[in-house]
Amino acid sequence: MPLRYLEDYEVGGVVRSPSRLVTKQEIISFASTWDPQPFHTDEEAAKTSIYGGLVASTAHIFAVSCALGAETDDRVAALAGLGFDEMRVHRPLRADDSVYFTAECKEVRRSMTKPDRGIVRTFTTIWNQNDEEVFSLYCTMMVKSRSFEE
Amino acid sequence: MPLRYLEDYEVGGVVRSPSRLVTKQEIISFASTWDPQPFHTDEEAAKTSIYGGLVASTAHIFAVSCALGAETDDRVAALAGLGFDEMRVHRPLRADDSVYFTAECKEVRRSMTKPDRGIVRTFTTIWNQNDEEVFSLYCTMMVKSRSFEE
Repeated sequence: MPLRYLEDYEVGGVVRSPSRLVTKQEIISFASTWDPQPFHTDEEAAKTSIYGGLVASTAHIFAVSCALGAETDDRVAALAGLGFDEMRVHRPLRADDSVYFTAECKEVRRSMTKPDRGIVRTFTTIWNQNDEEVFSLYCTMMVKSRSFEE
Repeated sequence: MPLRYLEDYEVGGVVRSPSRLVTKQEIISFASTWDPQPFHTDEEAAKTSIYGGLVASTAHIFAVSCALGAETDDRVAALAGLGFDEMRVHRPLRADDSVYFTAECKEVRRSMTKPDRGIVRTFTTIWNQNDEEVFSLYCTMMVKSRSFEE
């Protein structure tokens, strides 16, 4: 799988991931381990919640966004993750939704002190099968420069 | 388990969770499913990474923070999560670290239009066994008011 280096990012460029089906079983299983709230783990209880049914936990949606990243055509030559900002759930991720992400490059900056790397900031959005916005966040990464690798 | 309602929050108040051991197996297993980067899944490859060894993925640390929330003495009477901000990893979470969180209340505000609920904003920090800061984020939740429940 090719690596996506600092030079491969351009402000405004968009990467789209393949789609991924999120099953009821996965929603319940993830939340049972990590975020056992009734609207994530109990189909009946979820019906009386503000969501009116079972929804994936935010931690699960975030994990799905990482998994989608691993399924794109190229892998980021990431040295480290620097942080995530403005993580928002815009509408519930429900059982049997099929989701994909778009990651738009918002900023690319080579390090002044360590030119073999740089900072990339992307705005990632998860969309469902109806192309409705489910989730979004800003992701800031330290990425290797190709010119120092080859 | 008692529920923590809007009235139970006071700016400056701090909730501390119990500790939780994060094993090498859990780091590798979580990342293998959700974030398969070598420094999360491959002990040998991780040695040559910027981290010098295996580290938990950010998605895993976030999931751990949710799990710690579920292990505190009381459960938030959450109607919905509204978002997470300024998610930062300050130092790696490594195999066999034992972590806990503190959640400091930063803001409490009753809804003007729906007084049966309000907004709570907390600053959550995960600490390791040496009381070093591992991870932090701001969490904004919609929380039920007790006076409308009882």
